[in-house]
Amino acid sequence: MWPRLLRHSAAQFGRGPTHEMPHFPNSELFTLTYGALVTQLCKDYENDEEVNKQLDKMGYNIGVRLIEDFLARSTIGRCQDFRETADVIAKVAFKMYLGITPSVTNWSPAGDEFSLILENNPLADFVELPDNHNTLIYSNLLCGVLRGALEMVQMAVDVKFAQDTLRGDNVTEIRMKFIKRIEENLPAGEE
Amino acid sequence: MWPRLLRHSAAQFGRGPTHEMPHFPNSELFTLTYGALVTQLCKDYENDEEVNKQLDKMGYNIGVRLIEDFLARSTIGRCQDFRETADVIAKVAFKMYLGITPSVTNWSPAGDEFSLILENNPLADFVELPDNHNTLIYSNLLCGVLRGALEMVQMAVDVKFAQDTLRGDNVTEIRMKFIKRIEENLPAGEE
Repeated sequence: MWPRLLRHSAAQFGRGPTHEMPHFPNSELFTLTYGALVTQLCKDYENDEEVNKQLDKMGYNIGVRLIEDFLARSTIGRCQDFRETADVIAKVAFKMYLGITPSVTNWSPAGDEFSLILENNPLADFVELPDNHNTLIYSNLLCGVLRGALEMVQMAVDVKFAQDTLRGDNVTEIRMKFIKRIEENLPAGEE
Repeated sequence: MWPRLLRHSAAQFGRGPTHEMPHFPNSELFTLTYGALVTQLCKDYENDEEVNKQLDKMGYNIGVRLIEDFLARSTIGRCQDFRETADVIAKVAFKMYLGITPSVTNWSPAGDEFSLILENNPLADFVELPDNHNTLIYSNLLCGVLRGALEMVQMAVDVKFAQDTLRGDNVTEIRMKFIKRIEENLPAGEE
């Protein structure tokens, strides 16, 4: 049921085209608000897997909107290849919206997969997972955002957390795998 | 049920003491994430009134955490009176976390009430309320944040939206009314 409501409401709560926004001097309020969102989803859904899915879906719906803002702000044109896409994501997009610059690494030999290594993750800063949520992918919204945004520029990409400091890993790693280029005439949009 | 879960999870998802956070160059991702949160609550609760209440509660739980960050960053000491409090909220706190500086106006003769007038509201930028949510106080989280934060510095304050451009008003107005000074030895905390 919720994606239907989101689809409805998102259109209403959605954003218009290019516009100026104030700059947020710091992220604390966002971090705590994101925590409230995850907490609410943990209440709403029975298990972590469902919450992870919902975060990804929400992120997707955010990404398909955010891309417009990104293209307008960054004035970046079409990327030539997946390597350029990786650099733009890490150095421009993450910097623009999260204030961090992940490193791009672990390229697959075929050049269709890479990892973003986040030294620190503003969404999850100072968060600790409760024992009963040890399979929660707390920041999974980010995967959805990347997936949704890239779909709007005709790239189908698989995005997932490969490592997460919240779950005891040494670093936070988002793994991105290129699937295919989407034909321009296929409809893309909300899930 | 949800406040209990929030209480539990908030402690777990909560933030530690003073720390450095990256700066967010712009607010678009936050705005859309906040939209996803409101959309989720509209799904979860039966009517706008319930959603408004939940947003206020969530905000409260954020405010009681955010104040620590605020005091550490701003290095502002105890305010002498409610007028000074009003100025600090408008000129320091809103600037710090939302990048805007509301004007302080409409003081009551007794000096115990004032309004914050927001020329623009980053949380609600480009949002349109659906027809079936015309009593939704979209940004009500902010009232809770203010209430929670002030409670932690021993001020009981009533906070509510008096006007909202989302609901057709010319400006967005948050009305704040001083209720009482809280004795330091009373426990204050989550709702």
